[in-house]
Amino acid sequence: MQSALLDYLHLHIPLSRAMDVRVLEASADQVVLEAPLSPNGNMHGTMFGGSAATLALLAAWSVLHLRLEAGGIANQLVIHRTEMDYLRPITGKARATATLADTDWPGFVAMLNRRGKARLKVESVLTSDGVVAGRLAGAFVAILDR
Amino acid sequence: MQSALLDYLHLHIPLSRAMDVRVLEASADQVVLEAPLSPNGNMHGTMFGGSAATLALLAAWSVLHLRLEAGGIANQLVIHRTEMDYLRPITGKARATATLADTDWPGFVAMLNRRGKARLKVESVLTSDGVVAGRLAGAFVAILDR
Repeated sequence: MQSALLDYLHLHIPLSRAMDVRVLEASADQVVLEAPLSPNGNMHGTMFGGSAATLALLAAWSVLHLRLEAGGIANQLVIHRTEMDYLRPITGKARATATLADTDWPGFVAMLNRRGKARLKVESVLTSDGVVAGRLAGAFVAILDR
Repeated sequence: MQSALLDYLHLHIPLSRAMDVRVLEASADQVVLEAPLSPNGNMHGTMFGGSAATLALLAAWSVLHLRLEAGGIANQLVIHRTEMDYLRPITGKARATATLADTDWPGFVAMLNRRGKARLKVESVLTSDGVVAGRLAGAFVAILDR
């Protein structure tokens, strides 16, 4: 599932290629992405905030995408709102981990089936060298393909 | 000031090059940036949320950077938090406009001089074909170089 996700991201989202995003884990429960510093740097020699937030967003989007796919739920998935907290400068490669552990998945699917549309918030945690460096909360909207 | 800002962004932030970010306006009052769809697309044929948020963040950062530079205020400028609302899909090139009109600039500078550190929120509006497509609020921290 890792290489399928990598191919999908690199094919459909050119920015993920420019950022040299890699897939370390990919399942319907958790996605872990990684990006190196060099194509994602800034004038401070640390990771540019736009790259960090984008890596976190890609992880959150990916785990939701994979869970919907695993459930055979054909849909359009779009981002509605993000909140990103930058906690520490990232001086090397960054890792973004997104899980669906804390989400009300059954409620989300029920709403999606009833209304044809449902919203879900997914969190993504950025780490660098094992230390938490940022957190993104993404509110996604899924729209059922009828 | 436009080409100086463009050179600065493209030199120090490789992602701005990969996104093909252009500078339409650059002053200590307002910065307008633009990015084409192609390197910033997604699987829906619209602009990827990560690109849209990054363009908005770059505009917000840039106007604050230029105002500090115009005031001769040597500092480190880092992003602390962003909130991004995605209002409409962007189907062509996107434009991000950031101004300092609604900020308490004198209060920010006074705090920076007193504490050596101050926070400022800057808004950036994304448009596509003249229609508002998103809004980003970025909270930046400036740290005085002593």
